[in-house]
Amino acid sequence: MITLSVDAMGGDHGLESTVPASIATVDKHSDVRIILVGDAVQIAAKLGSHNDSDRISVRAASEVVTMDDTPAYALRKKKDSSMRVAINLVSDGEADACISAGNTGALMATARFVLKTIPGIERPAICASLPKLHGHTHMLDLGANIDSPSEILFQFGIMGNLLISCLGGPPNPSVGLLNIGVEEMKGSDTIRAAAELFRASNLNYKGFVEPDEIYIGDTDLIVCDGFVGNIALKASEGVAQMIMGTLKEEFNRNMATRAAGMVARPVLSAIKSRLDHRIYNGASLLGLRGTVVKSHGGMDSLGFQHAIEVALEEARENLVTQIENALTAIQL
Amino acid sequence: MITLSVDAMGGDHGLESTVPASIATVDKHSDVRIILVGDAVQIAAKLGSHNDSDRISVRAASEVVTMDDTPAYALRKKKDSSMRVAINLVSDGEADACISAGNTGALMATARFVLKTIPGIERPAICASLPKLHGHTHMLDLGANIDSPSEILFQFGIMGNLLISCLGGPPNPSVGLLNIGVEEMKGSDTIRAAAELFRASNLNYKGFVEPDEIYIGDTDLIVCDGFVGNIALKASEGVAQMIMGTLKEEFNRNMATRAAGMVARPVLSAIKSRLDHRIYNGASLLGLRGTVVKSHGGMDSLGFQHAIEVALEEARENLVTQIENALTAIQL
Repeated sequence: MITLSVDAMGGDHGLESTVPASIATVDKHSDVRIILVGDAVQIAAKLGSHNDSDRISVRAASEVVTMDDTPAYALRKKKDSSMRVAINLVSDGEADACISAGNTGALMATARFVLKTIPGIERPAICASLPKLHGHTHMLDLGANIDSPSEILFQFGIMGNLLISCLGGPPNPSVGLLNIGVEEMKGSDTIRAAAELFRASNLNYKGFVEPDEIYIGDTDLIVCDGFVGNIALKASEGVAQMIMGTLKEEFNRNMATRAAGMVARPVLSAIKSRLDHRIYNGASLLGLRGTVVKSHGGMDSLGFQHAIEVALEEARENLVTQIENALTAIQL
Repeated sequence: MITLSVDAMGGDHGLESTVPASIATVDKHSDVRIILVGDAVQIAAKLGSHNDSDRISVRAASEVVTMDDTPAYALRKKKDSSMRVAINLVSDGEADACISAGNTGALMATARFVLKTIPGIERPAICASLPKLHGHTHMLDLGANIDSPSEILFQFGIMGNLLISCLGGPPNPSVGLLNIGVEEMKGSDTIRAAAELFRASNLNYKGFVEPDEIYIGDTDLIVCDGFVGNIALKASEGVAQMIMGTLKEEFNRNMATRAAGMVARPVLSAIKSRLDHRIYNGASLLGLRGTVVKSHGGMDSLGFQHAIEVALEEARENLVTQIENALTAIQL
């Protein structure tokens, strides 16, 4: 039996997405139990007849971390938040993994404080899966670590590699280091030193990759420091929004274009659903002594359910132990 | 009279785009002369009847820098390349500005070697204009400088600000520093120190901006170091290509979707032309003691002509002198 703790109050939709996603998960997996953490009355109301399920339970927490709370404030002042209590359940051994759609900075800080990091890791890295024309690419770090030295970049590679296997990805994932060019002399001293470490390892290292590789290439895992990864991710989101905005404006320009939009609607829907990031939702916080998965804040229940699946696979495969062993091995 | 030197051989299309663009430019501006640099016989053939123009002349150069040449190789071994000779003309005072669609690294290295940088500037920065939903955003550095200290980031702001005025942009352009969050404590020590310099200046500094601001915000100028800028730019290009690839695939899926594509074609063309980066073509190399503009390598004559226009405006407004004066003033 695997037990997952869910921060029921986090994200833009809160209970509207976390509760149905949790119900769907226990319906799908007979070996999964879920503890929903938050306002017990509201959760019970939302659970309805599922309240009696022996595989869904409720844990009361009196506070909610908001999007405006700083990580420090959430950590020090909201010790009974749904996020904190959900993480505590992992730390106490009551749950095998936890999932939250709440404030990323607060989640990172709280998880790091409560669960601690694996020896040799200073801060957890965020690893997520990004859609490409066909398939998807895992990338880390997407926001936690700024100015990572070469050894840390190499650790990212090891952790990401194990995550991909654990999620049922290709057996020997190809790994690229994000850089401004593919030639060996490109980039900073740090990135070139990291390349040496990757080359000397038994990872399937393919060299430097440029950022367009994320979306149109065939690399399974792309490694970079958190500042650069976060910039690449948010620039991408900006472009995608701009293009979608342009599509919308042009199809709404006049009667004729609106008619064209109606004819093209099934195709436009197909495009939208292919680019739908809900099916890739669930970013893993790697390097912690416990499994924590972050859902995008805007996710509906389908998207949140995918984040739960990611946490479930990590717990099933004992990813934390795998990472601990692999990092110990390279530090010997 | 303003004289421009054009590397006629550079870019994917070479003479096919550089020669017609040059002809169109002298037709449009009666005070402009152009010196086309490269294979004199081929240029003459392409010029046809325009060969007799008193405002277009040809300067022979026996070599061409290829996309595979390293900057060092181009600099040391191709001293009679069309790129090098075009830059020499600026250095000799024969031309007021030069334009090339050739190898970016070679252009940077050659321009820096031949023209030298303005005192206080170590390497020139690349500043370009990126399309957004409505309008465009200037951004620098897009690729030359890695790990720029705070003073250099501040210099980028000053140079970009003057470039925007010189290209007829808004009178007091808003300036943002690219970061992974808008809060003051976000980012590296370097970026926070740069923010102090901007705040203390008379630039219209609006604070940290996240990368989606490039495409959907209202900041006129976004400043970042070259590594980060180049990553953001190439990630954006990758996403745009992926979305366009998805559009194409979905509209080509079957008879019905192809029919829908035909109905939607005028709208799809309108979208494509709004996102057309040709109208924003022409990246300025700022910080040199001479005006050099880089055209994207894949540009046709319309795109290349826009890069010529950028160089022309910079020369007309004496941007180099303006930058020199502004940087001297802050160093006093």
